[in-house]
Amino acid sequence: MVDVCLLGTGGMMPLKDRFLTSLYVSYNGKAILVDCGEGTQVAIAKHGLKMSRINLILITHCHADHISGLPGLLLSIGNSSRTEPLDIAAPESSISILENLMTICGGLPYTVRFYGLPEDRQVIFSADMIDPLLKIAVQPLSHRVPCVGYSLIFERKPTFLPQKAKELKVPVEYWKKLHCGEKIILEDGTIIAPEDVTEERKVPLKITYVTDTLPIDDIGVFASDADIFICEGMYGNPEKKASMNEKRHMLMQDACAIAKCAGVKRLWLTHYSPAEKEPSVYEETLREIFADTLVTSDGAKLTL
Amino acid sequence: MVDVCLLGTGGMMPLKDRFLTSLYVSYNGKAILVDCGEGTQVAIAKHGLKMSRINLILITHCHADHISGLPGLLLSIGNSSRTEPLDIAAPESSISILENLMTICGGLPYTVRFYGLPEDRQVIFSADMIDPLLKIAVQPLSHRVPCVGYSLIFERKPTFLPQKAKELKVPVEYWKKLHCGEKIILEDGTIIAPEDVTEERKVPLKITYVTDTLPIDDIGVFASDADIFICEGMYGNPEKKASMNEKRHMLMQDACAIAKCAGVKRLWLTHYSPAEKEPSVYEETLREIFADTLVTSDGAKLTL
Repeated sequence: MVDVCLLGTGGMMPLKDRFLTSLYVSYNGKAILVDCGEGTQVAIAKHGLKMSRINLILITHCHADHISGLPGLLLSIGNSSRTEPLDIAAPESSISILENLMTICGGLPYTVRFYGLPEDRQVIFSADMIDPLLKIAVQPLSHRVPCVGYSLIFERKPTFLPQKAKELKVPVEYWKKLHCGEKIILEDGTIIAPEDVTEERKVPLKITYVTDTLPIDDIGVFASDADIFICEGMYGNPEKKASMNEKRHMLMQDACAIAKCAGVKRLWLTHYSPAEKEPSVYEETLREIFADTLVTSDGAKLTL
Repeated sequence: MVDVCLLGTGGMMPLKDRFLTSLYVSYNGKAILVDCGEGTQVAIAKHGLKMSRINLILITHCHADHISGLPGLLLSIGNSSRTEPLDIAAPESSISILENLMTICGGLPYTVRFYGLPEDRQVIFSADMIDPLLKIAVQPLSHRVPCVGYSLIFERKPTFLPQKAKELKVPVEYWKKLHCGEKIILEDGTIIAPEDVTEERKVPLKITYVTDTLPIDDIGVFASDADIFICEGMYGNPEKKASMNEKRHMLMQDACAIAKCAGVKRLWLTHYSPAEKEPSVYEETLREIFADTLVTSDGAKLTL
């Protein structure tokens, strides 16, 4: 089971009742944080989640509303006695900015390992620090500074069929290996393949997170078939389109159009302008573009 | 009138219901902010104050809980269309750290001017950007990194006595000059001094802010006769003394002893450890050391 919590839904500046956009995804007792604006550590506590479980932080880009909570979060994680390393991935050219930001942390009792991601092509990496079954795809976006989107792809083990294993006389001690995808050889030389004792492989779970970008075509392909597509929608007022083009952001309507073309299961809008006091007023009309649109508010949760 | 608002009372990390220690002092429509930890811009809004009025930011030292709210605050001030320069003073060796921190702000529509303060001796400077009557004294403290305390000293014009001015036949157009401290010469050659037409000069108002330091002797002299002495009190439990010495902080009891010896009018404690869930439980016993002690909570306000 993968638990998703959108810690905040604000863009640009935190408000009294709206934290900055940040995503907390937990799986098997470990967590991934995507972006870390000012106040993220407070939002984590407010929503009853644990900082100490975070093993990987993914940064989309180095604007203050996406990273200024990082030094405080890392310090607070340090104060909770962490000693194992923590990994942070971000666009390549942001790494020196993040390293500079770390100077205000003083000494941490654990190592922070930075991973620079290419800014000119899609890549995919294994997030073994969370789980060998988790792959993370990275998509360059089009903002005023290098910015990437992330897809968290959780491969799922096929269901094991003990009855079949028994019929094939596979001793119980081999069942785990087979379920994990390894072939085994029985004493009589019979080779047993994982697919002999499991159901068909399930489609992976996919969470796509895209914020601070023009609505470029690549996003539709990148988000295709996502179980949940979390996407910025700075404004719901179409009159803001020219300003959004200039600032390299998108409207809620742009996100809905992408969601439709990408065939995602559901769209969660986020990263609202502080000027949008009640983003939910747009929800009904947005659902005419893409039916499964949710204009989220802070703390939106889902279990996949 | 000087309005004081303690935006938050937390040390180390913000909590769900406790912002980080930061002070907002307003005078004549302008404001001074002392320290700016994560969430300060939200605390300013929560307490009904204006970011746009801030003309001077005083930083005690460059630990994250005192400065990580700065990039977000400066950006939000920029979004409110500021164009006039904003001044930031901090210990000399911190300036490069602050400049690095600013890299995540992108372009601001106004200039930020940094002023490095000596770390080895007391200095005093005129805060003309707020008011020519405001002087700021700076005291080096003893923390793990260079750290200073601040006293905001508001000189007060003596009360003007129109009856006396009339008796001395001073034309009304000279009254303002005299009240502002200038001598004037009447047409008949008579010299009129300000003290001829005013009451005795009032004692200045003094606000002293000291946090993140060992309880060194200098603080008592620096805070002497303050109208309000705002001082850290990480713990109220005396068993924490050894740990506080090691981390170069002080106990609530240390602050009370300094307040007593400095003869301040009132002591406001702040900068509590996140482990001190209810700091007010110590108030009664602390008042045995210094009667006018307040174990503040977020949003404590006072008009001087």
